[in-house]
Amino acid sequence: MMAEHIGRRRWAIAEGYIPSYSNGPEPQFTSHETACILNTGDAPARIAITVYFADREPAGPYRVTVPPRRTLHLRFNELEDPEPIPCDTDYASVIESDVPVVVQHTRLDSRQAENALLSTVAYPAG
Amino acid sequence: MMAEHIGRRRWAIAEGYIPSYSNGPEPQFTSHETACILNTGDAPARIAITVYFADREPAGPYRVTVPPRRTLHLRFNELEDPEPIPCDTDYASVIESDVPVVVQHTRLDSRQAENALLSTVAYPAG
Amino acid sequence: MMAEHIGRRRWAIAEGYIPSYSNGPEPQFTSHETACILNTGDAPARIAITVYFADREPAGPYRVTVPPRRTLHLRFNELEDPEPIPCDTDYASVIESDVPVVVQHTRLDSRQAENALLSTVAYPAG
Amino acid sequence: MMAEHIGRRRWAIAEGYIPSYSNGPEPQFTSHETACILNTGDAPARIAITVYFADREPAGPYRVTVPPRRTLHLRFNELEDPEPIPCDTDYASVIESDVPVVVQHTRLDSRQAENALLSTVAYPAG
Repeated sequence: MMAEHIGRRRWAIAEGYIPSYSNGPEPQFTSHETACILNTGDAPARIAITVYFADREPAGPYRVTVPPRRTLHLRFNELEDPEPIPCDTDYASVIESDVPVVVQHTRLDSRQAENALLSTVAYPAG
Repeated sequence: MMAEHIGRRRWAIAEGYIPSYSNGPEPQFTSHETACILNTGDAPARIAITVYFADREPAGPYRVTVPPRRTLHLRFNELEDPEPIPCDTDYASVIESDVPVVVQHTRLDSRQAENALLSTVAYPAG
Repeated sequence: MMAEHIGRRRWAIAEGYIPSYSNGPEPQFTSHETACILNTGDAPARIAITVYFADREPAGPYRVTVPPRRTLHLRFNELEDPEPIPCDTDYASVIESDVPVVVQHTRLDSRQAENALLSTVAYPAG
Repeated sequence: MMAEHIGRRRWAIAEGYIPSYSNGPEPQFTSHETACILNTGDAPARIAITVYFADREPAGPYRVTVPPRRTLHLRFNELEDPEPIPCDTDYASVIESDVPVVVQHTRLDSRQAENALLSTVAYPAG
Protein backbone atom coordinates (compact mmCIF):
# COMPACT_ATOMS: atom_id res chain seq x y z
CA MET A 1 0.00 0.00 0.00
CA MET A 2 1.34 3.40 -1.04
CA ALA A 3 1.96 5.76 1.86
CA GLU A 4 3.66 8.68 0.13
CA HIS A 5 2.15 12.15 0.44
CA ILE A 6 0.88 13.20 -3.02
CA GLY A 7 0.06 16.76 -4.02
CA ARG A 8 0.80 20.23 -2.73
CA ARG A 9 0.81 22.16 0.54
CA ARG A 10 -1.27 25.12 -0.67
CA TRP A 11 -4.33 25.33 -2.92
CA ALA A 12 -6.66 28.13 -3.97
CA ILE A 13 -10.34 28.03 -4.99
CA ALA A 14 -11.38 31.38 -6.47
CA GLU A 15 -15.04 30.41 -6.81
CA GLY A 16 -17.31 30.08 -3.81
CA TYR A 17 -21.05 30.56 -3.30
CA ILE A 18 -23.39 28.70 -0.95
CA PRO A 19 -26.96 28.84 -2.23
CA SER A 20 -29.44 29.67 0.53
CA TYR A 21 -32.08 27.13 -0.33
CA SER A 22 -32.44 23.63 -1.75
CA ASN A 23 -34.77 21.06 -3.23
CA GLY A 24 -34.84 17.33 -2.54
CA PRO A 25 -34.09 15.04 0.41
CA GLU A 26 -31.44 16.22 2.90
CA PRO A 27 -28.53 16.03 3.38
CA GLN A 28 -27.63 14.66 -0.08
CA PHE A 29 -29.54 17.38 -1.93
CA THR A 30 -28.78 20.27 0.38
CA SER A 31 -27.07 22.88 -1.81
CA HIS A 32 -23.41 22.86 -0.84
CA GLU A 33 -19.83 23.71 -1.79
CA THR A 34 -17.25 21.07 -1.03
CA ALA A 35 -13.47 20.97 -0.84
CA CYS A 36 -12.52 17.34 -1.37
CA ILE A 37 -9.16 16.78 0.33
CA LEU A 38 -7.12 13.60 -0.21
CA ASN A 39 -4.29 12.70 2.16
CA THR A 40 -2.48 9.67 0.72
CA GLY A 41 0.38 9.67 3.23
CA ASP A 42 1.14 8.19 6.62
CA ALA A 43 1.00 11.44 8.59
CA PRO A 44 -2.17 13.36 9.47
CA ALA A 45 -2.72 16.50 7.38
CA ARG A 46 -3.37 19.56 9.52
CA ILE A 47 -5.35 21.96 7.33
CA ALA A 48 -5.95 25.71 7.73
CA ILE A 49 -8.55 27.36 5.48
CA THR A 50 -8.78 31.12 4.92
CA VAL A 51 -11.97 32.47 3.35
CA TYR A 52 -11.95 35.70 1.27
CA PHE A 53 -14.91 37.95 0.51
CA ALA A 54 -15.75 40.82 -1.83
CA ASP A 55 -16.16 43.54 0.77
CA ARG A 56 -14.67 42.58 4.12
CA GLU A 57 -11.45 41.19 5.63
CA PRO A 58 -10.86 37.42 5.34
CA ALA A 59 -12.28 34.92 7.84
CA GLY A 60 -10.40 32.09 9.46
CA PRO A 61 -8.32 30.15 9.81
CA TYR A 62 -10.75 27.25 9.88
CA ARG A 63 -8.90 24.14 11.08
CA VAL A 64 -9.54 20.53 10.16
CA THR A 65 -7.41 17.40 10.19
CA VAL A 66 -7.44 14.68 7.54
CA PRO A 67 -6.17 11.39 9.00
CA PRO A 68 -3.46 9.32 7.22
CA ARG A 69 -4.65 7.53 4.05
CA ARG A 70 -8.09 9.15 4.20
CA THR A 71 -10.17 11.62 2.22
CA LEU A 72 -12.33 14.38 3.70
CA HIS A 73 -15.08 15.94 1.61
CA LEU A 74 -15.45 19.15 3.57
CA ARG A 75 -18.69 21.12 3.14
CA PHE A 76 -18.09 24.86 3.51
CA ASN A 77 -21.62 25.31 4.87
CA GLU A 78 -20.71 23.14 7.86
CA LEU A 79 -17.79 25.36 8.95
CA GLU A 80 -18.69 27.18 12.16
CA ASP A 81 -15.49 28.12 13.96
CA PRO A 82 -14.47 30.99 14.01
CA GLU A 83 -17.69 31.98 12.16
CA PRO A 84 -20.13 30.45 9.64
CA ILE A 85 -19.80 31.42 5.98
CA PRO A 86 -22.87 33.44 4.96
CA CYS A 87 -25.16 32.14 2.19
CA ASP A 88 -25.78 33.96 -1.08
CA THR A 89 -22.37 35.62 -0.74
CA ASP A 90 -19.40 35.45 -3.14
CA TYR A 91 -16.32 34.03 -1.49
CA ALA A 92 -13.01 32.32 -2.29
CA SER A 93 -10.65 30.17 -0.25
CA VAL A 94 -7.03 29.21 0.31
CA ILE A 95 -6.33 25.78 1.77
CA GLU A 96 -2.96 25.19 3.47
CA SER A 97 -1.66 21.87 4.78
CA ASP A 98 1.45 20.88 6.70
CA VAL A 99 1.90 17.87 4.36
CA PRO A 100 1.10 17.53 0.63
CA VAL A 101 -2.57 16.83 -0.16
CA VAL A 102 -4.79 16.97 -3.27
CA VAL A 103 -7.81 19.33 -3.35
CA GLN A 104 -10.80 19.28 -5.70
CA HIS A 105 -13.74 21.69 -5.59
CA THR A 106 -17.38 20.71 -6.13
CA ARG A 107 -20.73 22.47 -5.89
CA LEU A 108 -24.18 20.87 -5.85
CA ASP A 109 -26.86 23.47 -6.50
CA SER A 110 -30.40 22.26 -5.85
CA ARG A 111 -32.13 25.62 -5.72
CA GLN A 112 -34.23 24.62 -8.68
CA ALA A 113 -36.08 21.32 -8.93
CA GLU A 114 -33.20 19.54 -10.64
CA ASN A 115 -29.71 19.65 -9.19
CA ALA A 116 -26.68 21.06 -11.03
CA LEU A 117 -23.06 20.15 -10.44
CA LEU A 118 -19.69 21.71 -11.04
CA SER A 119 -16.19 20.53 -10.20
CA THR A 120 -12.57 21.41 -10.84
CA VAL A 121 -9.23 20.52 -9.35
CA ALA A 122 -8.22 23.50 -7.21
CA TYR A 123 -5.29 25.72 -8.22
CA PRO A 124 -2.03 24.26 -6.81
CA ALA A 125 -0.42 27.36 -5.34
CA GLY A 126 2.58 26.11 -3.41
CA MET B 1 -3.24 36.69 8.36
CA MET B 2 -1.50 35.71 5.11
CA ALA B 3 -0.83 38.63 2.79
CA GLU B 4 1.29 37.01 0.08
CA HIS B 5 0.13 37.25 -3.53
CA ILE B 6 -0.80 33.74 -4.71
CA GLY B 7 -1.19 32.72 -8.34
CA ARG B 8 -0.15 34.08 -11.72
CA ARG B 9 -0.14 37.36 -13.64
CA ARG B 10 -1.82 36.03 -16.79
CA TRP B 11 -4.71 33.60 -17.32
CA ALA B 12 -6.67 32.43 -20.35
CA ILE B 13 -10.27 31.17 -20.65
CA ALA B 14 -10.85 29.66 -24.09
CA GLU B 15 -14.58 29.08 -23.51
CA GLY B 16 -17.05 31.95 -23.43
CA TYR B 17 -20.73 32.22 -24.27
CA ILE B 18 -23.39 34.39 -22.67
CA PRO B 19 -26.85 32.89 -23.18
CA SER B 20 -29.39 35.50 -24.26
CA TYR B 21 -32.24 34.45 -22.02
CA SER B 22 -32.86 33.00 -18.58
CA ASN B 23 -35.36 31.37 -16.26
CA GLY B 24 -35.86 32.02 -12.56
CA PRO B 25 -35.53 34.98 -10.19
CA GLU B 26 -32.95 37.65 -11.07
CA PRO B 27 -30.10 38.30 -10.60
CA GLN B 28 -29.13 34.90 -9.15
CA PHE B 29 -30.64 32.95 -12.05
CA THR B 30 -29.73 35.32 -14.85
CA SER B 31 -27.62 33.26 -17.27
CA HIS B 32 -24.05 34.46 -16.86
CA GLU B 33 -20.34 33.74 -17.32
CA THR B 34 -18.11 34.65 -14.43
CA ALA B 35 -14.37 35.09 -13.95
CA CYS B 36 -13.77 34.59 -10.23
CA ILE B 37 -10.60 36.49 -9.33
CA LEU B 38 -8.87 36.05 -5.96
CA ASN B 39 -6.30 38.58 -4.74
CA THR B 40 -4.73 37.23 -1.54
CA GLY B 41 -2.05 39.92 -1.26
CA ASP B 42 -1.66 43.34 0.32
CA ALA B 43 -1.58 45.34 -2.95
CA PRO B 44 -4.59 46.01 -5.18
CA ALA B 45 -4.67 43.92 -8.37
CA ARG B 46 -5.12 46.03 -11.48
CA ILE B 47 -6.71 43.74 -14.08
CA ALA B 48 -6.93 44.13 -17.87
CA ILE B 49 -9.20 41.73 -19.79
CA THR B 50 -9.00 41.17 -23.56
CA VAL B 51 -11.92 39.42 -25.24
CA TYR B 52 -11.44 37.37 -28.43
CA PHE B 53 -14.10 36.45 -30.99
CA ALA B 54 -14.49 34.08 -33.93
CA ASP B 55 -14.77 36.65 -36.67
CA ARG B 56 -13.60 40.09 -35.56
CA GLU B 57 -10.65 41.76 -33.84
CA PRO B 58 -10.43 41.49 -30.02
CA ALA B 59 -12.26 43.90 -27.71
CA GLY B 60 -10.78 45.61 -24.70
CA PRO B 61 -8.96 46.09 -22.54
CA TYR B 62 -11.68 45.97 -19.91
CA ARG B 63 -10.23 47.27 -16.62
CA VAL B 64 -11.19 46.29 -13.10
CA THR B 65 -9.41 46.44 -9.74
CA VAL B 66 -9.55 43.77 -7.04
CA PRO B 67 -8.72 45.27 -3.63
CA PRO B 68 -6.16 43.66 -1.31
CA ARG B 69 -7.33 40.40 0.37
CA ARG B 70 -10.57 40.36 -1.62
CA THR B 71 -12.27 38.27 -4.30
CA LEU B 72 -14.20 39.65 -7.27
CA HIS B 73 -16.65 37.39 -9.10
CA LEU B 74 -16.81 39.35 -12.34
CA ARG B 75 -19.77 38.72 -14.64
CA PHE B 76 -18.81 39.16 -18.29
CA ASN B 77 -22.34 40.30 -19.11
CA GLU B 78 -21.84 43.33 -16.86
CA LEU B 79 -18.79 44.61 -18.75
CA GLU B 80 -19.70 47.77 -20.67
CA ASP B 81 -16.52 49.76 -21.29
CA PRO B 82 -15.21 49.90 -24.02
CA GLU B 83 -18.20 47.87 -25.34
CA PRO B 84 -20.62 45.20 -24.07
CA ILE B 85 -19.98 41.56 -25.00
CA PRO B 86 -22.74 40.36 -27.33
CA CYS B 87 -24.98 37.45 -26.28
CA ASP B 88 -25.20 34.16 -28.15
CA THR B 89 -21.67 34.70 -29.45
CA ASP B 90 -18.60 32.50 -28.97
CA TYR B 91 -15.78 34.33 -27.23
CA ALA B 92 -12.62 33.72 -25.19
CA SER B 93 -10.65 35.90 -22.79
CA VAL B 94 -7.19 36.67 -21.46
CA ILE B 95 -6.94 38.15 -17.97
CA GLU B 96 -3.77 40.05 -17.04
CA SER B 97 -2.90 41.43 -13.60
CA ASP B 98 -0.03 43.52 -12.27
CA VAL B 99 0.24 41.21 -9.24
CA PRO B 100 -0.36 37.43 -9.00
CA VAL B 101 -4.02 36.40 -8.69
CA VAL B 102 -6.02 33.16 -9.06
CA VAL B 103 -8.76 32.92 -11.72
CA GLN B 104 -11.60 30.38 -11.98
CA HIS B 105 -14.26 30.33 -14.70
CA THR B 106 -17.96 29.54 -14.09
CA ARG B 107 -21.12 29.60 -16.19
CA LEU B 108 -24.71 29.42 -14.97
CA ASP B 109 -27.06 28.60 -17.82
CA SER B 110 -30.73 29.01 -17.00
CA ARG B 111 -32.12 29.05 -20.52
CA GLN B 112 -34.11 25.94 -19.75
CA ALA B 113 -36.29 25.56 -16.66
CA GLU B 114 -33.49 24.04 -14.58
CA ASN B 115 -30.11 25.70 -14.30
CA ALA B 116 -26.85 24.07 -15.39
CA LEU B 117 -23.38 24.89 -14.11
CA LEU B 118 -19.84 24.52 -15.34
CA SER B 119 -16.53 25.56 -13.80
CA THR B 120 -12.81 25.16 -14.29
CA VAL B 121 -9.68 26.84 -13.06
CA ALA B 122 -8.50 29.07 -15.92
CA TYR B 123 -5.29 28.24 -17.81
CA PRO B 124 -2.31 29.83 -16.03
CA ALA B 125 -0.47 31.43 -18.93
CA GLY B 126 2.27 33.53 -17.37
CA MET C 1 -3.14 44.95 -28.47
CA MET C 2 -1.29 41.82 -27.34
CA ALA C 3 -0.19 39.57 -30.18
CA GLU C 4 1.90 36.98 -28.35
CA HIS C 5 1.01 33.31 -28.71
CA ILE C 6 -0.22 32.06 -25.32
CA GLY C 7 -0.49 28.40 -24.35
CA ARG C 8 0.88 25.11 -25.58
CA ARG C 9 1.36 23.22 -28.84
CA ARG C 10 -0.25 19.94 -27.71
CA TRP C 11 -3.33 19.23 -25.60
CA ALA C 12 -5.22 16.07 -24.64
CA ILE C 13 -8.90 15.56 -23.77
CA ALA C 14 -9.43 12.08 -22.32
CA GLU C 15 -13.23 12.43 -22.14
CA GLY C 16 -15.38 12.37 -25.26
CA TYR C 17 -18.95 11.31 -25.89
CA ILE C 18 -21.47 12.76 -28.35
CA PRO C 19 -25.03 12.01 -27.21
CA SER C 20 -27.22 10.81 -30.06
CA TYR C 21 -30.28 12.86 -29.30
CA SER C 22 -31.27 16.25 -27.92
CA ASN C 23 -34.05 18.40 -26.54
CA GLY C 24 -34.71 22.07 -27.24
CA PRO C 25 -34.23 24.47 -30.16
CA GLU C 26 -31.34 23.77 -32.54
CA PRO C 27 -28.47 24.42 -32.90
CA GLN C 28 -27.95 25.91 -29.41
CA PHE C 29 -29.47 22.90 -27.64
CA THR C 30 -28.14 20.17 -29.91
CA SER C 31 -26.12 17.88 -27.65
CA HIS C 32 -22.46 18.51 -28.46
CA GLU C 33 -18.84 18.27 -27.36
CA THR C 34 -16.70 21.30 -28.03
CA ALA C 35 -12.98 22.02 -28.09
CA CYS C 36 -12.68 25.77 -27.51
CA ILE C 37 -9.38 26.87 -29.09
CA LEU C 38 -7.91 30.34 -28.46
CA ASN C 39 -5.17 31.72 -30.71
CA THR C 40 -3.96 34.99 -29.20
CA GLY C 41 -1.02 35.48 -31.59
CA ASP C 42 -0.37 37.08 -34.96
CA ALA C 43 0.11 33.84 -36.93
CA PRO C 44 -2.66 31.44 -37.93
CA ALA C 45 -2.77 28.23 -35.85
CA ARG C 46 -2.81 25.12 -38.00
CA ILE C 47 -4.46 22.42 -35.90
CA ALA C 48 -4.41 18.62 -36.30
CA ILE C 49 -6.80 16.54 -34.17
CA THR C 50 -6.42 12.79 -33.59
CA VAL C 51 -9.41 10.93 -32.15
CA TYR C 52 -8.95 7.76 -30.07
CA PHE C 53 -11.53 5.04 -29.43
CA ALA C 54 -11.98 2.06 -27.09
CA ASP C 55 -11.83 -0.68 -29.68
CA ARG C 56 -10.38 0.53 -32.99
CA GLU C 57 -7.38 2.43 -34.35
CA PRO C 58 -7.42 6.25 -34.06
CA ALA C 59 -9.13 8.48 -36.65
CA GLY C 60 -7.68 11.58 -38.22
CA PRO C 61 -5.93 13.85 -38.48
CA TYR C 62 -8.81 16.31 -38.65
CA ARG C 63 -7.45 19.68 -39.78
CA VAL C 64 -8.71 23.13 -38.90
CA THR C 65 -7.13 26.59 -38.86
CA VAL C 66 -7.72 29.26 -36.22
CA PRO C 67 -6.96 32.72 -37.63
CA PRO C 68 -4.71 35.19 -35.75
CA ARG C 69 -6.31 36.76 -32.65
CA ARG C 70 -9.41 34.60 -32.93
CA THR C 71 -11.15 31.79 -31.03
CA LEU C 72 -12.75 28.72 -32.59
CA HIS C 73 -15.30 26.72 -30.62
CA LEU C 74 -15.05 23.50 -32.57
CA ARG C 75 -17.91 21.01 -32.26
CA PHE C 76 -16.70 17.43 -32.60
CA ASN C 77 -20.04 16.40 -34.10
CA GLU C 78 -19.37 18.71 -37.06
CA LEU C 79 -16.09 17.01 -38.02
CA GLU C 80 -16.55 15.07 -41.27
CA ASP C 81 -13.14 14.66 -42.92
CA PRO C 82 -11.67 12.01 -42.92
CA GLU C 83 -14.76 10.50 -41.21
CA PRO C 84 -17.53 11.59 -38.81
CA ILE C 85 -17.20 10.68 -35.12
CA PRO C 86 -19.92 8.19 -34.20
CA CYS C 87 -22.52 9.09 -31.56
CA ASP C 88 -22.96 7.17 -28.30
CA THR C 89 -19.31 6.09 -28.49
CA ASP C 90 -16.53 6.74 -25.97
CA TYR C 91 -13.64 8.65 -27.49
CA ALA C 92 -10.69 10.90 -26.56
CA SER C 93 -8.65 13.42 -28.51
CA VAL C 94 -5.22 14.97 -28.91
CA ILE C 95 -5.03 18.48 -30.37
CA GLU C 96 -1.75 19.61 -31.91
CA SER C 97 -0.96 23.11 -33.19
CA ASP C 98 2.03 24.62 -34.98
CA VAL C 99 1.88 27.65 -32.64
CA PRO C 100 0.87 27.82 -28.95
CA VAL C 101 -2.89 27.90 -28.31
CA VAL C 102 -5.19 27.39 -25.29
CA VAL C 103 -7.78 24.57 -25.34
CA GLN C 104 -10.84 24.12 -23.11
CA HIS C 105 -13.32 21.25 -23.33
CA THR C 106 -17.10 21.61 -22.94
CA ARG C 107 -20.10 19.32 -23.31
CA LEU C 108 -23.76 20.32 -23.51
CA ASP C 109 -26.00 17.32 -22.95
CA SER C 110 -29.65 17.91 -23.76
CA ARG C 111 -30.81 14.32 -23.96
CA GLN C 112 -33.17 14.94 -21.08
CA ALA C 113 -35.54 17.90 -20.92
CA GLU C 114 -33.05 20.12 -19.08
CA ASN C 115 -29.54 20.60 -20.38
CA ALA C 116 -26.42 19.71 -18.43
CA LEU C 117 -22.97 21.21 -18.87
CA LEU C 118 -19.41 20.22 -18.13
CA SER C 119 -16.13 21.97 -18.83
CA THR C 120 -12.43 21.70 -18.04
CA VAL C 121 -9.23 23.13 -19.39
CA ALA C 122 -7.66 20.37 -21.48
CA TYR C 123 -4.45 18.66 -20.33
CA PRO C 124 -1.42 20.64 -21.60
CA ALA C 125 0.76 17.86 -23.00
CA GLY C 126 3.58 19.60 -24.81
CA MET D 1 0.06 8.30 -36.73
CA MET D 2 1.50 9.49 -33.41
CA ALA D 3 2.56 6.71 -31.08
CA GLU D 4 4.25 8.63 -28.30
CA HIS D 5 3.01 8.20 -24.73
CA ILE D 6 1.46 11.49 -23.62
CA GLY D 7 0.75 12.45 -20.02
CA ARG D 8 1.84 11.28 -16.59
CA ARG D 9 2.31 8.04 -14.66
CA ARG D 10 0.30 9.06 -11.58
CA TRP D 11 -2.95 10.97 -11.19
CA ALA D 12 -5.21 11.79 -8.25
CA ILE D 13 -8.97 12.43 -8.11
CA ALA D 14 -9.95 13.81 -4.71
CA GLU D 15 -13.68 13.76 -5.45
CA GLY D 16 -15.64 10.53 -5.62
CA TYR D 17 -19.26 9.65 -4.94
CA ILE D 18 -21.46 7.07 -6.63
CA PRO D 19 -25.14 7.97 -6.25
CA SER D 20 -27.25 4.97 -5.26
CA TYR D 21 -30.14 5.54 -7.63
CA SER D 22 -30.85 6.88 -11.09
CA ASN D 23 -33.48 8.10 -13.53
CA GLY D 24 -33.69 7.39 -17.24
CA PRO D 25 -32.79 4.52 -19.59
CA GLU D 26 -29.83 2.31 -18.59
CA PRO D 27 -26.90 2.14 -18.94
CA GLN D 28 -26.45 5.67 -20.36
CA PHE D 29 -28.38 7.32 -17.54
CA THR D 30 -27.21 5.12 -14.69
CA SER D 31 -25.58 7.49 -12.20
CA HIS D 32 -21.84 6.91 -12.45
CA GLU D 33 -18.33 8.23 -11.85
CA THR D 34 -15.86 7.72 -14.64
CA ALA D 35 -12.08 7.92 -14.96
CA CYS D 36 -11.42 8.53 -18.66
CA ILE D 37 -7.94 7.17 -19.41
CA LEU D 38 -6.16 7.89 -22.71
CA ASN D 39 -3.16 5.82 -23.80
CA THR D 40 -1.70 7.42 -26.94
CA GLY D 41 1.39 5.23 -27.11
CA ASP D 42 2.40 1.92 -28.63
CA ALA D 43 2.68 -0.04 -25.37
CA PRO D 44 -0.26 -1.21 -23.26
CA ALA D 45 -0.83 0.83 -20.09
CA ARG D 46 -1.06 -1.34 -16.99
CA ILE D 47 -3.11 0.65 -14.48
CA ALA D 48 -3.43 0.22 -10.69
CA ILE D 49 -6.14 2.20 -8.88
CA THR D 50 -6.18 2.77 -5.11
CA VAL D 51 -9.44 4.01 -3.57
CA TYR D 52 -9.43 6.09 -0.37
CA PHE D 53 -12.31 6.55 2.06
CA ALA D 54 -13.22 8.82 4.98
CA ASP D 55 -13.19 6.24 7.73
CA ARG D 56 -11.41 3.04 6.67
CA GLU D 57 -8.15 1.88 5.10
CA PRO D 58 -7.82 2.19 1.29
CA ALA D 59 -9.12 -0.48 -1.10
CA GLY D 60 -7.26 -1.92 -4.03
CA PRO D 61 -5.30 -2.07 -6.10
CA TYR D 62 -7.88 -2.40 -8.85
CA ARG D 63 -6.09 -3.43 -12.06
CA VAL D 64 -7.07 -2.61 -15.64
CA THR D 65 -5.13 -2.45 -18.90
CA VAL D 66 -5.61 0.17 -21.62
CA PRO D 67 -4.40 -1.17 -24.98
CA PRO D 68 -2.04 0.86 -27.21
CA ARG D 69 -3.67 3.87 -28.94
CA ARG D 70 -6.95 3.37 -27.11
CA THR D 71 -9.08 5.15 -24.50
CA LEU D 72 -10.88 3.47 -21.61
CA HIS D 73 -13.75 5.28 -19.88
CA LEU D 74 -13.71 3.31 -16.64
CA ARG D 75 -16.82 3.42 -14.48
CA PHE D 76 -15.97 3.13 -10.79
CA ASN D 77 -19.30 1.42 -10.11
CA GLU D 78 -18.22 -1.48 -12.34
CA LEU D 79 -15.08 -2.23 -10.31
CA GLU D 80 -15.53 -5.50 -8.43
CA ASP D 81 -12.10 -6.95 -7.66
CA PRO D 82 -10.91 -6.89 -4.88
CA GLU D 83 -14.24 -5.37 -3.70
CA PRO D 84 -17.02 -3.13 -5.07
CA ILE D 85 -17.01 0.56 -4.14
CA PRO D 86 -20.03 1.28 -1.93
CA CYS D 87 -22.68 3.78 -3.08
CA ASP D 88 -23.51 6.99 -1.23
CA THR D 89 -20.00 7.01 0.21
CA ASP D 90 -17.31 9.70 -0.14
CA TYR D 91 -14.17 8.37 -1.75
CA ALA D 92 -11.06 9.50 -3.67
CA SER D 93 -8.65 7.70 -5.96
CA VAL D 94 -5.06 7.51 -7.15
CA ILE D 95 -4.42 6.11 -10.61
CA GLU D 96 -0.95 4.77 -11.40
CA SER D 97 0.29 3.56 -14.79
CA ASP D 98 3.50 1.97 -15.99
CA VAL D 99 3.53 4.32 -19.01
CA PRO D 100 2.32 7.94 -19.30
CA VAL D 101 -1.44 8.34 -19.77
CA VAL D 102 -3.97 11.21 -19.50
CA VAL D 103 -6.82 10.99 -16.96
CA GLN D 104 -10.04 13.02 -16.83
CA HIS D 105 -12.79 12.62 -14.23
CA THR D 106 -16.54 12.79 -14.99
CA ARG D 107 -19.72 12.20 -13.02
CA LEU D 108 -23.24 11.80 -14.38
CA ASP D 109 -25.82 12.19 -11.64
CA SER D 110 -29.33 11.17 -12.61
CA ARG D 111 -30.83 10.88 -9.14
CA GLN D 112 -33.28 13.61 -10.00
CA ALA D 113 -35.34 13.64 -13.19
CA GLU D 114 -32.75 15.61 -15.15
CA ASN D 115 -29.14 14.54 -15.27
CA ALA D 116 -26.25 16.69 -14.05
CA LEU D 117 -22.65 16.48 -15.19
CA LEU D 118 -19.27 17.44 -13.84
CA SER D 119 -15.78 16.95 -15.24
CA THR D 120 -12.20 17.96 -14.59
CA VAL D 121 -8.78 16.83 -15.68
CA ALA D 122 -7.37 14.82 -12.77
CA TYR D 123 -4.44 16.16 -10.74
CA PRO D 124 -1.15 15.08 -12.38
CA ALA D 125 0.82 13.81 -9.41
CA GLY D 126 3.89 12.18 -10.84
